[in-house]
Amino acid sequence: MSLKTHHPVPLPLASYKAQHVKLVVEGKLATLTLNRPERKNPLTFESYAEIAGIFRAAAHDDQVKAFVITGEGGNFCSGGDVFEIIGPLVEMNTVDLLKFTKMTGEAVKAMRACPQTIVAAVDGICAGAGAILAMASDLRVGTAKAKVLFLFNRVGLAGCDMGACSILPRIIGQGRAAELLYTGRAMGGEEAERWGFFNKLSSSENVLADATALAKDIADGPTFANGMTKRMLEMEWAMSVEQSIEAEAVAQALCMETEDFSRAFHAFAAKQKPVFEGN
Amino acid sequence: MSLKTHHPVPLPLASYKAQHVKLVVEGKLATLTLNRPERKNPLTFESYAEIAGIFRAAAHDDQVKAFVITGEGGNFCSGGDVFEIIGPLVEMNTVDLLKFTKMTGEAVKAMRACPQTIVAAVDGICAGAGAILAMASDLRVGTAKAKVLFLFNRVGLAGCDMGACSILPRIIGQGRAAELLYTGRAMGGEEAERWGFFNKLSSSENVLADATALAKDIADGPTFANGMTKRMLEMEWAMSVEQSIEAEAVAQALCMETEDFSRAFHAFAAKQKPVFEGN
Amino acid sequence: MSLKTHHPVPLPLASYKAQHVKLVVEGKLATLTLNRPERKNPLTFESYAEIAGIFRAAAHDDQVKAFVITGEGGNFCSGGDVFEIIGPLVEMNTVDLLKFTKMTGEAVKAMRACPQTIVAAVDGICAGAGAILAMASDLRVGTAKAKVLFLFNRVGLAGCDMGACSILPRIIGQGRAAELLYTGRAMGGEEAERWGFFNKLSSSENVLADATALAKDIADGPTFANGMTKRMLEMEWAMSVEQSIEAEAVAQALCMETEDFSRAFHAFAAKQKPVFEGN
Repeated sequence: MSLKTHHPVPLPLASYKAQHVKLVVEGKLATLTLNRPERKNPLTFESYAEIAGIFRAAAHDDQVKAFVITGEGGNFCSGGDVFEIIGPLVEMNTVDLLKFTKMTGEAVKAMRACPQTIVAAVDGICAGAGAILAMASDLRVGTAKAKVLFLFNRVGLAGCDMGACSILPRIIGQGRAAELLYTGRAMGGEEAERWGFFNKLSSSENVLADATALAKDIADGPTFANGMTKRMLEMEWAMSVEQSIEAEAVAQALCMETEDFSRAFHAFAAKQKPVFEGN
Repeated sequence: MSLKTHHPVPLPLASYKAQHVKLVVEGKLATLTLNRPERKNPLTFESYAEIAGIFRAAAHDDQVKAFVITGEGGNFCSGGDVFEIIGPLVEMNTVDLLKFTKMTGEAVKAMRACPQTIVAAVDGICAGAGAILAMASDLRVGTAKAKVLFLFNRVGLAGCDMGACSILPRIIGQGRAAELLYTGRAMGGEEAERWGFFNKLSSSENVLADATALAKDIADGPTFANGMTKRMLEMEWAMSVEQSIEAEAVAQALCMETEDFSRAFHAFAAKQKPVFEGN
Repeated sequence: MSLKTHHPVPLPLASYKAQHVKLVVEGKLATLTLNRPERKNPLTFESYAEIAGIFRAAAHDDQVKAFVITGEGGNFCSGGDVFEIIGPLVEMNTVDLLKFTKMTGEAVKAMRACPQTIVAAVDGICAGAGAILAMASDLRVGTAKAKVLFLFNRVGLAGCDMGACSILPRIIGQGRAAELLYTGRAMGGEEAERWGFFNKLSSSENVLADATALAKDIADGPTFANGMTKRMLEMEWAMSVEQSIEAEAVAQALCMETEDFSRAFHAFAAKQKPVFEGN
């Protein structure tokens, strides 16, 4: 049982053999798959730490420009494993409990801190910490059959898990987030699209392909600039409007120094499609 | 005429005889009813102060685990009484005006600060300070016939009343909130559901029963943890993502020390439904 | 080429002859029209600076109580002119780049800082800096044919332009804003209404008239109080709930000292419609 905030992952990600999840890097795209389909892909102490480690390493990986995160076998993730996680937690002392909650929070922090855009492909059950992983992604492609459950209060816990009380209201609004967190009820796929949680709906057959196509499209964009977009979407969370505008002036001026900006202008002038290189 | 921030209410709430509203405590559930139906339940200086007092007392009441707030006679609340409140305000000096606005703000603060989940049952007119009471609740069950009016600008005032410029945008988005606050127009019931203000629509016959069932369901949950959810939904309002995740790690670790967490695990292991006790 | 943060505009606005946009003041209403329809109303260095100057001057203009902002010829605005703005930026040094981004940000700051309510009338193309001008308005009337594109990443830049990473998520939610900013794809008119970006949909024939009617209606309201609503909608962006309620208590007490508040009460008592004067 590991309660380190994250499992150190060596670079490059393309050469890393993940042990507790599946990680495949092809070109600019990394696909992280939760792969215990016989139990709907629950998380364990080890997989939490490895996920955090992968996204922490991603911040320093020059090849990977976007992530897809998904689950095997028709479900996204059933959350923290009842017998491998919840059982031990019930017996755990205060010091270790805080280590655990800081470790799970580290996974979300790492997802938010890496410059790559993360697209979740969500079908079937997406519960507890699984719902959090979807929420902590940048974009979400779902299906009508998906069920997203922030079910913490069903297991006797608070909805304030891994940033949910801060992030979920920004995505779907304060009233709807409150309902999901107080009741633990399932948000259905169509409801999730209507509320802005899913960016679009796909079919079970196509959801991974659609999420992959979206991630590839973004990875072919100006990735230095996209990383700045991600950084500022986070940094401005609790800034005033004036502060946000000032911060963006500096960030965008920096992006105007990149070759990608010049490439886009010259391609436009030549009536061609720009080929971005992320620098 | 009282301009104290709140009317002190003695504990326990189950024994308190409310004077300016109706308060009924049954088991874990308290139902607060605005009860001047002949005038669509307007508020007075006294009822504002009593509402604030009830929710301030609720923070120290161990029996009540959830609230329903509603109005008698097919309407929720017509807002501050024109002749009992607005008339006197027009004549009031600066010092007393600020006392008044601080008193009304105190009602919202008390609703947000108590650990109980508050479910509003909203039918008919829900205007001015009445719209604020609905907005300041945690969850809202409405009807298609409900009309929610943040009508402050219709009476010559600003939309920034009792937290509306902060709370309403978080529920329905900045653009829609701005429209309601600049125009004072009615948000209809179906629109309110579509925008995330109402969590669900019911009928005039069933709205109180549905809100009560929802509140009871939440009151039967892990109420210590639910109170923490409420606290963090407020506290993280203006925190960064990183700060939010840190704050939640500490709050959730505390919830993992409760018996309710253990009860849920052992019930699950025994394939039973957990019985939560709020500790 | 001007890179001053704004072009100084003399008062009153009713007498000012705009050079790079069209500005018409009629009674309490000012209509600012982007008027290079042959190129879908692109912005230039000069028009940015003039727009900023107009809204900075508006803060001190006693006649104008509301703005409509629109574009000529069936389109709102195609954004920064490719050859007049993007070309020069590609060649520009660091110091001037920051001057440019601070100047464009100044336009948004000026729109948010003036007390007048700004209603955008949006048809056709609304792209790049044009999408920002619509976003920075208080209210937006659109058409089903409108296409709103935050297309910065298509030209090699980040989505964090002129406040977009802060303001757009508050209007349409974090997940939808992220999608638009990462992909640069068009948000269609019906989608924009469904997501809360457009307050309502109109037809190409009526969109300007509808926006004008809405702006006039607001200009006939209690404009001192409306300016306070605007101020607080901005100021409370990054405040806690408690701080917001305190700030609103003070702001609303001040509005209760205005004659407009008294006018509304006496009109109501006399069963008449109040005539507000903005004081």
